Amino acid sequence: MRVDGRQLDELRQVHIETEYIKHPEGSVLITVGDTKVICTASIEDRVPPFMRNQGKGWITAEYSMLPRATEQRNIREASKGKVTGRTMEIQRLIGRALRSIVDLEKIGERTIWIDCDVIQADGGTRTAAITGAFVALVLAVEKYMTAGKINSFPIKDFLAAVSVGIDSKLGEILDLNYIEDSSANVDMNVIMTGNGQFVELQGTGEEATFTREQLNYLLDLAQKGINELFLAQIEALGSIADKIPAQLKTER
Amino acid sequence: MRVDGRQLDELRQVHIETEYIKHPEGSVLITVGDTKVICTASIEDRVPPFMRNQGKGWITAEYSMLPRATEQRNIREASKGKVTGRTMEIQRLIGRALRSIVDLEKIGERTIWIDCDVIQADGGTRTAAITGAFVALVLAVEKYMTAGKINSFPIKDFLAAVSVGIDSKLGEILDLNYIEDSSANVDMNVIMTGNGQFVELQGTGEEATFTREQLNYLLDLAQKGINELFLAQIEALGSIADKIPAQLKTER
Amino acid sequence: MRVDGRQLDELRQVHIETEYIKHPEGSVLITVGDTKVICTASIEDRVPPFMRNQGKGWITAEYSMLPRATEQRNIREASKGKVTGRTMEIQRLIGRALRSIVDLEKIGERTIWIDCDVIQADGGTRTAAITGAFVALVLAVEKYMTAGKINSFPIKDFLAAVSVGIDSKLGEILDLNYIEDSSANVDMNVIMTGNGQFVELQGTGEEATFTREQLNYLLDLAQKGINELFLAQIEALGSIADKIPAQLKTER
Amino acid sequence: MRVDGRQLDELRQVHIETEYIKHPEGSVLITVGDTKVICTASIEDRVPPFMRNQGKGWITAEYSMLPRATEQRNIREASKGKVTGRTMEIQRLIGRALRSIVDLEKIGERTIWIDCDVIQADGGTRTAAITGAFVALVLAVEKYMTAGKINSFPIKDFLAAVSVGIDSKLGEILDLNYIEDSSANVDMNVIMTGNGQFVELQGTGEEATFTREQLNYLLDLAQKGINELFLAQIEALGSIADKIPAQLKTER
Amino acid sequence: MRVDGRQLDELRQVHIETEYIKHPEGSVLITVGDTKVICTASIEDRVPPFMRNQGKGWITAEYSMLPRATEQRNIREASKGKVTGRTMEIQRLIGRALRSIVDLEKIGERTIWIDCDVIQADGGTRTAAITGAFVALVLAVEKYMTAGKINSFPIKDFLAAVSVGIDSKLGEILDLNYIEDSSANVDMNVIMTGNGQFVELQGTGEEATFTREQLNYLLDLAQKGINELFLAQIEALGSIADKIPAQLKTER
Amino acid sequence: MRVDGRQLDELRQVHIETEYIKHPEGSVLITVGDTKVICTASIEDRVPPFMRNQGKGWITAEYSMLPRATEQRNIREASKGKVTGRTMEIQRLIGRALRSIVDLEKIGERTIWIDCDVIQADGGTRTAAITGAFVALVLAVEKYMTAGKINSFPIKDFLAAVSVGIDSKLGEILDLNYIEDSSANVDMNVIMTGNGQFVELQGTGEEATFTREQLNYLLDLAQKGINELFLAQIEALGSIADKIPAQLKTER
Repeated sequence: MRVDGRQLDELRQVHIETEYIKHPEGSVLITVGDTKVICTASIEDRVPPFMRNQGKGWITAEYSMLPRATEQRNIREASKGKVTGRTMEIQRLIGRALRSIVDLEKIGERTIWIDCDVIQADGGTRTAAITGAFVALVLAVEKYMTAGKINSFPIKDFLAAVSVGIDSKLGEILDLNYIEDSSANVDMNVIMTGNGQFVELQGTGEEATFTREQLNYLLDLAQKGINELFLAQIEALGSIADKIPAQLKTER
Repeated sequence: MRVDGRQLDELRQVHIETEYIKHPEGSVLITVGDTKVICTASIEDRVPPFMRNQGKGWITAEYSMLPRATEQRNIREASKGKVTGRTMEIQRLIGRALRSIVDLEKIGERTIWIDCDVIQADGGTRTAAITGAFVALVLAVEKYMTAGKINSFPIKDFLAAVSVGIDSKLGEILDLNYIEDSSANVDMNVIMTGNGQFVELQGTGEEATFTREQLNYLLDLAQKGINELFLAQIEALGSIADKIPAQLKTER
Repeated sequence: MRVDGRQLDELRQVHIETEYIKHPEGSVLITVGDTKVICTASIEDRVPPFMRNQGKGWITAEYSMLPRATEQRNIREASKGKVTGRTMEIQRLIGRALRSIVDLEKIGERTIWIDCDVIQADGGTRTAAITGAFVALVLAVEKYMTAGKINSFPIKDFLAAVSVGIDSKLGEILDLNYIEDSSANVDMNVIMTGNGQFVELQGTGEEATFTREQLNYLLDLAQKGINELFLAQIEALGSIADKIPAQLKTER
Repeated sequence: MRVDGRQLDELRQVHIETEYIKHPEGSVLITVGDTKVICTASIEDRVPPFMRNQGKGWITAEYSMLPRATEQRNIREASKGKVTGRTMEIQRLIGRALRSIVDLEKIGERTIWIDCDVIQADGGTRTAAITGAFVALVLAVEKYMTAGKINSFPIKDFLAAVSVGIDSKLGEILDLNYIEDSSANVDMNVIMTGNGQFVELQGTGEEATFTREQLNYLLDLAQKGINELFLAQIEALGSIADKIPAQLKTER
Repeated sequence: MRVDGRQLDELRQVHIETEYIKHPEGSVLITVGDTKVICTASIEDRVPPFMRNQGKGWITAEYSMLPRATEQRNIREASKGKVTGRTMEIQRLIGRALRSIVDLEKIGERTIWIDCDVIQADGGTRTAAITGAFVALVLAVEKYMTAGKINSFPIKDFLAAVSVGIDSKLGEILDLNYIEDSSANVDMNVIMTGNGQFVELQGTGEEATFTREQLNYLLDLAQKGINELFLAQIEALGSIADKIPAQLKTER
Repeated sequence: MRVDGRQLDELRQVHIETEYIKHPEGSVLITVGDTKVICTASIEDRVPPFMRNQGKGWITAEYSMLPRATEQRNIREASKGKVTGRTMEIQRLIGRALRSIVDLEKIGERTIWIDCDVIQADGGTRTAAITGAFVALVLAVEKYMTAGKINSFPIKDFLAAVSVGIDSKLGEILDLNYIEDSSANVDMNVIMTGNGQFVELQGTGEEATFTREQLNYLLDLAQKGINELFLAQIEALGSIADKIPAQLKTER
């Protein structure tokens, strides 16, 4: 049995609260078990220098944790004066993933800043951040559609992320919490679209390895979890979800 | 009339939610109007080098804003690679204020880290941070008392902070929101103890000045506001509030 | 009796030597007891980005200490690679204070850089810096008036600063030296204009508090000291002092 | 046809020159087509603080490019004053991968520093770095075995890495050069051991996605390329290769 | 006898391999005994801000060592986040020296970036860098001449550098290797042109001094060594060497 | 004629005021024409890590300019967050030079910090810094001798520095001021001991070169200037100068 009593293929309780912060164009608080992340989407009417005069937009992401989101207090990156390698990896991952399901030409020469701030951490913060940031992004875009600043809905498909892993005793498990993540032999983050394609796959065997068969079973588990995350996103988005053109492989 | 319909001497709605984050020894979400700050208190069993072997503890504070806590998105200090002057001033202020009402010898050679993270800003973030951090600090200390790690209750008095200012049309006003703060001629932050003494007074006339008479009326307003903040702290702390020895000038 | 034999309400010996450095538009060496600060004012014919095209100027200040201005050698901030919180607070304070008595529109789209470098420290360096910087600023502005680059005298009033504090044995004292400052319960910096108004008030009870009555007596002491500082400024400025329009509360 | 005339499943020319630099315990120059990387392994007789007193060693990696390894000159990270996110990701990847095939207890409380410096870049620098670093690591460890400082051979298996990707016209291809990498829809880095298990899998569809079927074919291609890389490693290592206990799935 | 068996006035074996890296406009690998430096010259079609609109070009240099170029591994400057004083001194020296023999007007408003990366160090890395960088610079310039981007050959004279020093036992010696450099009382770097003039002279007696007579003999040794370096440059450059107008004091 | 009317071999007016700052163990204000530098020597009772347990001391130097020491205001290095290459070169030069005339074993395991702060610059700041720092160093050491903390006088010889250069019209000149320095073809800094030996020689022909004959005449000029600087040092030191054992080549 898992430490929190879940089945091997069971996701933690997921909830996405929209309009959590008043200033951003889009914002949510996503809760996955004890992991809580504030995701905001802010639209700026210009693009970074390397994107200028290409007639399309850009999406970039930043990620941070409150110092006491974790069991032990972490030193703030602002105090250290630099962003850690882990944070940079996560930021780049979130940005890449979101760009894959947005038609950047439709948003015009604008930058959408995604901010994911973990206020409480219990494993899976980067995947929760992606799943929540997708909703904040859609809300921000919808606000610009309503205001007539964007003419055509630029979101091409749903996007969600989940972790899977291999525990030395239990085998393959879905949606690892912090304790499970700390002891897992293999850890994999999977990001998929609503029509069942991969956007990103990052599997790591820290001081361990995994076979092709194990990989296949991990991907089946991930697909199951991501289908459930899509339902949570649809519930949070309400009727806006209908504007997303892609067919979900699972029923809405 | 004030932009949000308040009386000149009227505080915004205040609420302090305790145990907001699960990991820290003490944590609150303080809400003052549309200003929301997560305050946590983390206890570490050692002191910084300059305090070693003195048989007493230390309290230090850090302050930050989520990038989109404000109307315009702010660049993260971690991305800039340095903490701004404004942040440093606020951090030093919070630390100094809290140290003034704690018997540092009673907490032993420990450091209490206060983290104040503004998730939504509408003026008065530093005073809300101090008022909330006081409660988080008391909760953390109480947890250590209960666990037998601290033998004698080290909190000597209540502590709360409020802003007052002078508007060119309305005159002296209590608890400025962001719009009021932006247009005020004079801005003053007042930090007081439960027995009515000053801990810190910072009055600034940016491109303006103020008279001794105006100063006196501003201090009267601040006293009124702070008395109401004590009541919110007492409500949040429940029976723990009774352990604080100082007499409140106002009735509890 | 005070450690240096002064009366409780007695200022240290003050002297302001003008034209101390040959290159800057304005420069002084201000000596307050054993505290010595070189203050220069440099005029640059452009404003920072956030001030452009507003038809007015800007005043900004920097503050530093020589490493051995103090009893113990301090590590240079250039070597540390960053400016400390204390320095930033002081820099912001000096800039704000000077801007309050200058008509920024009259100086045109120019930046006046104030540099305050403490070459010997014995308490009260920030207040000495402000008092000296005022004179350097007036000299620089006068040089630009004479050269016909500024048409109307932009200085609206005198400006000086002093510290007051509460000693646990002596009570309220004026103009604390380093030893007094280190042991004072309460430390307050007061910045006032020639016509007797406050520009800035910063009172701090580090691990202590103070009453409204004590505050009132501290402000009386500060007013006395500042009146004497105005006389030192007038002596240094000579006939240029007559161009400052405000009435001094005290006789010139 | 591919831009350089290769078959879709054809690796570039690979050569690993050992003892390339005289000072390090192990060093190679690995050449994969026009990509050239100097890999060194340096053994230090202590571990980082977080590893102390655990009776085992640590392996950490650093990666850099000469400024003109690329078509356009890159600014040095030393001049920028910080390491980019891309570099940090690669460094972490190399370190994790190498740790997976080393018995860290057998190397004792020592740190092995892997330095991968790209002197000429034409795509696949991170996978070349891993493939070359493995050989440098084995050479360094062997030198310590010969010197009697390590008693038992700590390398558990072979390790090599290759990139695969999807070109919009050609479909799945093995070992992308820079031009192919720039235009590929999907880019995947695969790190495997000699006995055919995965150590790390990183597949990214920047502004694109990929199906489960495509993933399976990409992994087949990667396995083919990695088998050939093992042969190059065996040729470079000579008789030392026989000390590596794992069975290669492919014949040696 | 010297540690490596050389005569007191004997240079180490010198070899300059051209076109070492494929991307840069000019590149060499210079080998002086066991010291190996990759020198590249990159031409950028603009100048730094302080050189704009002066109708002439600029040459700037950067220098670095691979971490394990030395006996003990060095921490990367990128990891430290700053360039050391030693590196800055060397970078400034290389740039100054090369600018002295180039007609900057003839290269137009372009910057030539010189990158010197030491891959193996055994003393004399800065002088080897200058001697090699001269060849890379000439190659880059010749490429631009051939492409018709530069009309008139801008190299005015040859340039090479060597170290000389005083050993406490052997006296004056030419071209110190690392062991000799570590124990020398006096260390001098001499940079000269083909027609026998000095460009730079840097003589240092770390915890020692030297007389005018010793200086004179050191300069004689340096002249001898530099003459031999010119021959190695001529061999590397082939017929391009004939375009350099200055007369060599020594026969070509 | 020179711009300030001096003879070609004429030093500017030199004055060294001792005990200029009250806190440091030794301090001077050295004035060379319009160049003014505060030099202090601070003794710390420990050495840097790389010098520990060797039974001897260390001397290290820092150099800075006030922002408006120069005609144009310079940005503070503390604000830039890093020390420039020029500053690092000068700091290393001052430290090396002073260490050459001190018996480091006699000062014990102590660090002497030399701080040279230029308050007004008109060329030759680094040579003035060295000449002044020597006096501050001797004063500090003498204070420790008097206090019985050092038993044997550790200063072995006098030390002074001067610049010489070649003007395109006037030829070789001694002690260049800022205007002369800006237009000189060749600039050389010479540091010598009282007994006429060289400690450091740094000659640079920026975009120019110089012959062996010119070098010889420059060294003659430097020797003349340095002899006069020794007299100024002796005057400043008074009877302490007699403790320096070396014979001055020139009469005292």
